[in-house]
Amino acid sequence: MNKNQYVAIMAGGIGSRFWPKSRTNFPKQFLDILGTGKTLIQATFNRYSKVVPIENIYVVTSHDYAAIVEAQLPALPKENIVAEPFRKNTAPCIAYIAFKIHEKNPDAVMIAAPADNHIPDEEKFIGVMNKALDFVGHINAITTVGILPTHPNTGYGYIQHESAEVAPGIYKVKTFTEKPNLELAKAFIESGDFLWNSGIFTWKCKTIIEAFEQHLPEVYELFYSDKDKLNTAEEQKVIEEIYSQCPSISIDFGIMEKAGNVYTIPASFSWSDLGTWNSAHANMEKDYFDNAVAGRNVMAFDTQNCIVHTSDKKLVLVQGLEDYIIVDTDDVLMICKKEKEQEIKDYVSEVKKAKGDKFL
Amino acid sequence: MNKNQYVAIMAGGIGSRFWPKSRTNFPKQFLDILGTGKTLIQATFNRYSKVVPIENIYVVTSHDYAAIVEAQLPALPKENIVAEPFRKNTAPCIAYIAFKIHEKNPDAVMIAAPADNHIPDEEKFIGVMNKALDFVGHINAITTVGILPTHPNTGYGYIQHESAEVAPGIYKVKTFTEKPNLELAKAFIESGDFLWNSGIFTWKCKTIIEAFEQHLPEVYELFYSDKDKLNTAEEQKVIEEIYSQCPSISIDFGIMEKAGNVYTIPASFSWSDLGTWNSAHANMEKDYFDNAVAGRNVMAFDTQNCIVHTSDKKLVLVQGLEDYIIVDTDDVLMICKKEKEQEIKDYVSEVKKAKGDKFL
Repeated sequence: MNKNQYVAIMAGGIGSRFWPKSRTNFPKQFLDILGTGKTLIQATFNRYSKVVPIENIYVVTSHDYAAIVEAQLPALPKENIVAEPFRKNTAPCIAYIAFKIHEKNPDAVMIAAPADNHIPDEEKFIGVMNKALDFVGHINAITTVGILPTHPNTGYGYIQHESAEVAPGIYKVKTFTEKPNLELAKAFIESGDFLWNSGIFTWKCKTIIEAFEQHLPEVYELFYSDKDKLNTAEEQKVIEEIYSQCPSISIDFGIMEKAGNVYTIPASFSWSDLGTWNSAHANMEKDYFDNAVAGRNVMAFDTQNCIVHTSDKKLVLVQGLEDYIIVDTDDVLMICKKEKEQEIKDYVSEVKKAKGDKFL
Repeated sequence: MNKNQYVAIMAGGIGSRFWPKSRTNFPKQFLDILGTGKTLIQATFNRYSKVVPIENIYVVTSHDYAAIVEAQLPALPKENIVAEPFRKNTAPCIAYIAFKIHEKNPDAVMIAAPADNHIPDEEKFIGVMNKALDFVGHINAITTVGILPTHPNTGYGYIQHESAEVAPGIYKVKTFTEKPNLELAKAFIESGDFLWNSGIFTWKCKTIIEAFEQHLPEVYELFYSDKDKLNTAEEQKVIEEIYSQCPSISIDFGIMEKAGNVYTIPASFSWSDLGTWNSAHANMEKDYFDNAVAGRNVMAFDTQNCIVHTSDKKLVLVQGLEDYIIVDTDDVLMICKKEKEQEIKDYVSEVKKAKGDKFL
């Protein structure tokens, strides 16, 4: 493996659509949502440990979650846990880790990837990531892995690319489109030149830093002026100052949609961002009646196409349910029609209104 | 109140149809099934404390539950908790308490009543019980309170009585019928001379002991030969010997259906034996959508005609459910169609088969 190649796993999200399993103080990337025996960040870490040296893997997370990361990834060097003092969306987070790695290694090439992707086909995945790392190692490019869509999902961002390849299997991006409505999503799929945006980016640190300089100069200046304090005893103090002044902005809106050197590598591996309970259901093992179960003591009678998520110590007996999400935790039980999964956010708001933060 | 009048509250049942709230080691009579703030036995004790002196109230229960009775009824004299060493159905239990009270007070008149009846109209109830006590005080009779049926319930026993009164509002019983099918239950209701058997019996101790002598001589002999050891330090030892030899038989089958001096007092108060979750639903406060809730943190969306039973510390959010029983305890969650409540016993058997006694 190449010593110049790095991975930053972005693990600061709060995963509110996986409530009540995902909680503000213990969000979904730290949970075994699929009932596989591994949490999502553990699976992601394992996957990338086959792409870059372990000492080159960083996890960027909220300082609230740093201890959880340390506990769940014992193989990760402790100094590679990068804690953000505030939530400022993805652009400051990427600027931080890109500057930090660049200070260590000016030749660094890096992948920035979500902690919660589900990608079962590791072999294909490793091939695509090596191709991306190789491409940006040679060209000053920003790449994103584009997933060949299998259905008109309205929860994903889409990438439209040019039809001519710039290199074998690599295309220039024309536009990004955030969560389309169903009609538009169907049209995207039919047109054949749209991909799902995986949010798995690859670039040289130098290249993304230049993109910040050009498109988000305010963010660039904040990090640039103190970059020599990164990887020193002063880092934490400096980062708190920078973050307190930093605007909250996404990398997609701040850089991707503006930069001219953005490319996509279409990938045919099965991929899910595990954004919702239905996507979890789709990616879990299911019984003959399409029930997906996490928990060792779940007994289902006359029950179909449900997801039941509980702890191994609890007995859950369900009868006569079809198309429901049933999630039981120590202090919260949620039973909800699968078709209402997008409303879970609204139910959580109602809970907050009625009960405060206690159950969030 | 009359010093010769006693009540024996029968609290040895295991309430399996209220699983998973009712558990082998903590059955329904000790639970606040209706969400009123009182357990069923507490409500029953309060009711009878307005009929007889508190020192004349006895609770007969399994020795496994004696400590629960003591904790839940602090006003009950501790020596009035009568613990059965084995479960031998209702006849030995009644023989035991009748002999015990008779030894103390040969003039005793007693009520034997289930611990889990729900009778909200106390005034009417007290009137009926005083009438029953007065009747059996004068006549060597066995009475049972008959409830004017409101619907063809197939879970109750029925009483057919003669049409002529023997005293104002008191009738001789012709037959007892256990749980009829729906057609028969409908015919009973239409005929007008059937009542629900409340299982609230009244008699002189002397009268019921004579009935045992005549109809269950085997049981009679066992208790009679050691009756002078009751209410002494030897009681427990003697009772263990008696119970180990005693047949397991119900008072209904062993005495009621055979005795010639059985009378019924029709009562028009609202009554439920709280045998099932549906009967609990019927007797609980309900919201506009007919949901009955126990638990302070239950939030229901698009949900109708459900019963949700949980602890005050748990948040339960339900969406899109109609006609379900949802019961959540620390170690068991059950979700089940209301129409399947009679099958709960079968589900419990399946749980026992699959998981042993752990969740029973």
